[in-house]
Amino acid sequence: MYIKKGICLAGGIRVVSEEKKKNRVSVEINKRTYTIVGPESKEHVELVASLVDQKMRDIRSTNKHLDSTKLAVLTALNTMNEYIKLKEEHEELITLIEEEE
Amino acid sequence: MYIKKGICLAGGIRVVSEEKKKNRVSVEINKRTYTIVGPESKEHVELVASLVDQKMRDIRSTNKHLDSTKLAVLTALNTMNEYIKLKEEHEELITLIEEEE
Repeated sequence: MYIKKGICLAGGIRVVSEEKKKNRVSVEINKRTYTIVGPESKEHVELVASLVDQKMRDIRSTNKHLDSTKLAVLTALNTMNEYIKLKEEHEELITLIEEEE
Repeated sequence: MYIKKGICLAGGIRVVSEEKKKNRVSVEINKRTYTIVGPESKEHVELVASLVDQKMRDIRSTNKHLDSTKLAVLTALNTMNEYIKLKEEHEELITLIEEEE
C-alpha cells in the first residue's frame, strides 16, 4: 500500500488526512510580499501582518537609518519583549486563581 | 534657562530626571550585534534576545534559502501570532474572573 498526500492508491480508497487544512495568504510587510502557509484564517494572518508592519513603521520613525534586517530584528525583539511580559502576567493570574481555589 | 540631559545649567542646580535609568545591553542575534537601550535589566534583554535568536534558527532550519530580512520578518510574524493568541487567552481569563465576581 502506497500512501501519498492522504490518498491510498492501492485499494482506491481515499484516506482522509488528519492534517488541518492549510491556507496560503499573501501579505505585504515593509514593501515586500510574504506568502504565509498555515492553518490560520486569512483574516488572522492579515491582522498579524498589519501589526508587524505598523510596529516596523513605528521603529523606523525613530531610527531612520536602520537597514531592513536590523529593523525587522528590532521588531521581533520588541514583540518578544511584549510576549514575555504578557506571559508573566498571565501566569501570575493563573497562580492567583489556583491559590483561591 | 537651558536644560540638557536633566541638568539645569542656568542656576547651577541639578534637575533630577524623572526618566527611569536606561541600560545599554549588547546582544548577538543571527551573527549581528545589537545595542539595546532601555529600562529593562541586562538579564531580561539577554533572555529576549536569546529567544529571538533561537526562533530565527528554528525558522532557518526549515527554510534554508531565506535572506536575513525575510527570516527576521517571519520571526516577528511568528512572535506576533503567539502574542495575539496569548492576549486572547488572557482576556478570556479576565472575562471569566469578572463574571464570577
